[in-house]
Amino acid sequence: MLRPIEWVGDTDGHLRLLDQTRLPATTEYIDCTDVDTVWHAIKRLSVRGAPAIGISAAYGCVIGARNNQLDEAIAHLRTSRPTAVNLFWALDRIAALKTTDPQRILDEAHAIADEDDAMCRSIGRHALALIDSLTAKAPDRPLRLITHCNAGKLATGGIGTATAAAYLAKEQGRDVTVYADETRPLLQGARLTAFELTDAGIDVRLICDGAASEVLRAGAVDAAIVGADRIAANGDTANKVGTCGLASLARHHGIPFLVAAPHSTFDLNTATGNAIPIEERAAEEVTEGFGTRTAPPDVRVFNPAFDITPANLITAIVTDQGVIRPVSEAAVRDHLAVDTEPAR
Amino acid sequence: MLRPIEWVGDTDGHLRLLDQTRLPATTEYIDCTDVDTVWHAIKRLSVRGAPAIGISAAYGCVIGARNNQLDEAIAHLRTSRPTAVNLFWALDRIAALKTTDPQRILDEAHAIADEDDAMCRSIGRHALALIDSLTAKAPDRPLRLITHCNAGKLATGGIGTATAAAYLAKEQGRDVTVYADETRPLLQGARLTAFELTDAGIDVRLICDGAASEVLRAGAVDAAIVGADRIAANGDTANKVGTCGLASLARHHGIPFLVAAPHSTFDLNTATGNAIPIEERAAEEVTEGFGTRTAPPDVRVFNPAFDITPANLITAIVTDQGVIRPVSEAAVRDHLAVDTEPAR
Repeated sequence: MLRPIEWVGDTDGHLRLLDQTRLPATTEYIDCTDVDTVWHAIKRLSVRGAPAIGISAAYGCVIGARNNQLDEAIAHLRTSRPTAVNLFWALDRIAALKTTDPQRILDEAHAIADEDDAMCRSIGRHALALIDSLTAKAPDRPLRLITHCNAGKLATGGIGTATAAAYLAKEQGRDVTVYADETRPLLQGARLTAFELTDAGIDVRLICDGAASEVLRAGAVDAAIVGADRIAANGDTANKVGTCGLASLARHHGIPFLVAAPHSTFDLNTATGNAIPIEERAAEEVTEGFGTRTAPPDVRVFNPAFDITPANLITAIVTDQGVIRPVSEAAVRDHLAVDTEPAR
Repeated sequence: MLRPIEWVGDTDGHLRLLDQTRLPATTEYIDCTDVDTVWHAIKRLSVRGAPAIGISAAYGCVIGARNNQLDEAIAHLRTSRPTAVNLFWALDRIAALKTTDPQRILDEAHAIADEDDAMCRSIGRHALALIDSLTAKAPDRPLRLITHCNAGKLATGGIGTATAAAYLAKEQGRDVTVYADETRPLLQGARLTAFELTDAGIDVRLICDGAASEVLRAGAVDAAIVGADRIAANGDTANKVGTCGLASLARHHGIPFLVAAPHSTFDLNTATGNAIPIEERAAEEVTEGFGTRTAPPDVRVFNPAFDITPANLITAIVTDQGVIRPVSEAAVRDHLAVDTEPAR
């Protein structure tokens, strides 16, 4: 079974990371016995996905602490992925322990990993129950999903977010089929999602992003389910480019479209998706995506990394705390109040 | 200016074909001085697109006739692309002349090419007028379109079908911008559409298929316009896989979605899109699309070459005979009756 992030041994042990840059061709692990190796693994995307980066950095602090260099380790690891919010969150949590005891830091890193694992499983339970209820399926029937990009094991400390329902159903002995959009330009679906689901014995069908329509038209899936990078207060969702296309096809074909994400993905300071800036990335991801030039020289390229799926195309948002359905600002605020204002 | 198909000289001349397999890296022409070179050019997709194949085959017959081998040439060329309807149509038209005079055959081949050119220009005029009227644009304002795959100059004997409005507007001195879906798996948008429009001085923006949503959300285009491989009696349209995704996004974002095709693309014997068989192609187009393996070994792949866009997502179908709008079986039959039953 795939273990993307594993601490091997006790406080004298080391961090073993699956080198995701080598996937899917090669399954190779990086044994990190010093902080700088952890830093490089995050920097060069050997480990990616917000939760996975946070967990890896926390374990990196154990190595720093046992070498009496905890502060240096925290400062160094902070610079590995400057835009990764989970990275700072995890490092701050270690710093807040106000201890240099490697055992206590290892315990905290394990706790961060365990909480992420529990979060994923909770999302999976809510998502699976919702899909079964939306499709009037008995809980022992085959589950057939379509997803975009990778919001799976390889991005988290657990069974992923968008993939969690599939892993849980598989654990329960159900037949599971997942259609995986390859997800241009960087092909996370082909390289990562298809890899991790195959490894888990789940029946994967890889498709070009544009082939989703034929999958849905054939009635081959029960639901579409994707992760999220950021969710606005009204439920508009930023996720990997191509997500909104899948959502609009799902609406057209009458298939439920679900967003699965930890409740921490909401940004209530962002009113709607229109306020979310969309990062544009290098033209070469499109024109030379695979080491071969496939477009005319000097052609202009528009390469947004994310897109916005409006709340009105989302059947439900599934978090570790439950289900938001239908999706509206009031429902989002209600849902989050459970956690943020428990005294009320 | 790009000339994908050109007869050079008189009956002693030769057929010059742009080698589309070398695009976009290299602009190289194949000078066909014997029938077998024409056969190979069609066979290995140096020339592709139904009208372009028919025209090339007709010119090939001139070479056969002047060598006193017309029957052999027709029989041989028939075997170059067994599923290309236009190929048989053009060869039958040459055979029906019942002459071996190279000059008369050359005149007929020129006529086939000229008719295709006129057909494209007629589609372009109808499409441009429709877009201007749908978007309430003055005819001298910038034109901004999005298209999928290649239904352009490189596929026809003229200015293409889906691209015809863009070329005409450019001829009229308007600023023209075309967003070109790269069109996975075979990247006809990146390799061909981006190439031919750039060559014509049109502002092209290449995007991944999944990025269309952000283009439409930004209000960056006036209309989406695509070609068609086959149109059913009710207007359901088979076209390159990914077309329906663009259509459903256009509907979601309130942008007109147009199909541009010669009236011969209709198949009234096919009641709806559900009756159109969808060819599935090799997994390697998805998993090794660029000479590099980008998916796990042995992963299952679903690779449909086409998809069906239902009539209810199509704002209008534009043919060389005019505009069908709204799209319905009655409107389709009315439209085609103009041509098929002129005496009524």
